[in-house]
Amino acid sequence: MADQQQIHDSNTAINNAAKEALFVIKIGGNIIDDASKLNNFLKQFTDIQGKKILVHGGGKLATQLAKDLGIEQEMVDGRRITDAATLKIVTMVYAGFINKNIVAILQSNGNNAIGFTGADANLIKAHKRLTSASKGIDYGFVGDIDEVNTSAIEPLLIQNIAIVVAPITHDGHGQLLNTNADTIAQSIATAMSSKYEVSLLYCFEKNGVLLDANDDASVIPTINPSYFKKLKEDQLIFAGMIPKLENAFEALEKGVGKVIIGKAESILDLVNAHAGTTIQNS
Amino acid sequence: MADQQQIHDSNTAINNAAKEALFVIKIGGNIIDDASKLNNFLKQFTDIQGKKILVHGGGKLATQLAKDLGIEQEMVDGRRITDAATLKIVTMVYAGFINKNIVAILQSNGNNAIGFTGADANLIKAHKRLTSASKGIDYGFVGDIDEVNTSAIEPLLIQNIAIVVAPITHDGHGQLLNTNADTIAQSIATAMSSKYEVSLLYCFEKNGVLLDANDDASVIPTINPSYFKKLKEDQLIFAGMIPKLENAFEALEKGVGKVIIGKAESILDLVNAHAGTTIQNS
Repeated sequence: MADQQQIHDSNTAINNAAKEALFVIKIGGNIIDDASKLNNFLKQFTDIQGKKILVHGGGKLATQLAKDLGIEQEMVDGRRITDAATLKIVTMVYAGFINKNIVAILQSNGNNAIGFTGADANLIKAHKRLTSASKGIDYGFVGDIDEVNTSAIEPLLIQNIAIVVAPITHDGHGQLLNTNADTIAQSIATAMSSKYEVSLLYCFEKNGVLLDANDDASVIPTINPSYFKKLKEDQLIFAGMIPKLENAFEALEKGVGKVIIGKAESILDLVNAHAGTTIQNS
Repeated sequence: MADQQQIHDSNTAINNAAKEALFVIKIGGNIIDDASKLNNFLKQFTDIQGKKILVHGGGKLATQLAKDLGIEQEMVDGRRITDAATLKIVTMVYAGFINKNIVAILQSNGNNAIGFTGADANLIKAHKRLTSASKGIDYGFVGDIDEVNTSAIEPLLIQNIAIVVAPITHDGHGQLLNTNADTIAQSIATAMSSKYEVSLLYCFEKNGVLLDANDDASVIPTINPSYFKKLKEDQLIFAGMIPKLENAFEALEKGVGKVIIGKAESILDLVNAHAGTTIQNS
């Protein structure tokens, strides 16, 4: 038995040693909407060693284009309802303008990159969110993810090509779907974790999860499930942060090695675990 | 010498036998602007056996979006001047809306596909057209192609993933460029011809090159350089067709196996050489 255990330990060690690092990084509107911040972020992104997948959200550009076209945006509970006209707009802005500009900037930095939506190489298959499953609200052409197929991105990652993913998926029946970028990042990170040692980084406008929302220096370095429970009980974290953290714990349970939450401006420090909040399982 | 010639012939035969078929197909606005025509074309495209690259033009959608946004389109000699606002529009429409819809429809047909611009995986590097090189006209953000890098698309083609290319390139310094789709198709076909037996198919609104522009049944089955010369002398082909054919002969000279010109609606017949005009070198 002791021998078997040793063999098992040794195999685990070999597997871990064989797993290369992969960073799955999600950025949001605060970076995308500001050309100089985006350029700075992409310079740091270029300097990250290892395999990289960047998932970008949408930002204000889609809202602005809808306004310019006189298309009214219906919001319910802070969420955009994606009617056919809005789907066309987000497809153009996310998969066209934002995605291709990020790819072109990365190329200019010498970081080979390729843009994807979930439809490309069938990367992410989803289904239109059921009205019955969302408090009776019909969110329109919004996708809930069913599966991630990584077979096409693996040979690209091997060539050290960064994958840049726009938050659009498809249903396999020809329908594109607007899909939450946080969820896309988590799904891809999870799907890649059998082959890579995955770090999932959620970038937002704060330095990390803060003990005091008004004090940017009050970053909590690490959160595990019991501390998370306590933070919720003490009402030190609220609203938007709770689903983000639940998402993070779910990713860890599904095999992702590490989840880090912090500021896009400090991405290199986040990658090196010198900044942000690390979410861990124990 | 005879032996050496035999060895050379035998090597050529082996090389030809080893080369798999690749179809590079260019479609234009007449197909893209009509949903039912596009669906029908993509069904036939799905049925084509072998490796496939589809290059699509833009169609009227970009012009319509510019109109809806109140952005004036300046045309010189029938060509769109691509200012910054227009570049944003064509990037959104070509690389976003059209490209991703084509990919999603192909997925629904069971034809795995992935969308590209020239920026993606550095597929096509171009430079902004020099004013001095174009009769003093500044076409704006229009790209003339410098190089095609096929290393990233090869592992995708091996997986039988069709490559769908939007007519946008990049200059390697972060600038996207609006680029002629016919030229993109020719450049990709040429670049792939060292590894594949390439057929380049230009689809347009006619059945092929016509002897009588008003008679759709007057398709010329084959054109070689001497016949091309005679057709020009006899003024039987004009204007838009001459650069198309010059383009075709250039492709053949650079190693493309076959160039066929015909109707997108008959793509399967074109592929099987039962329709259209075949351009050949002798």
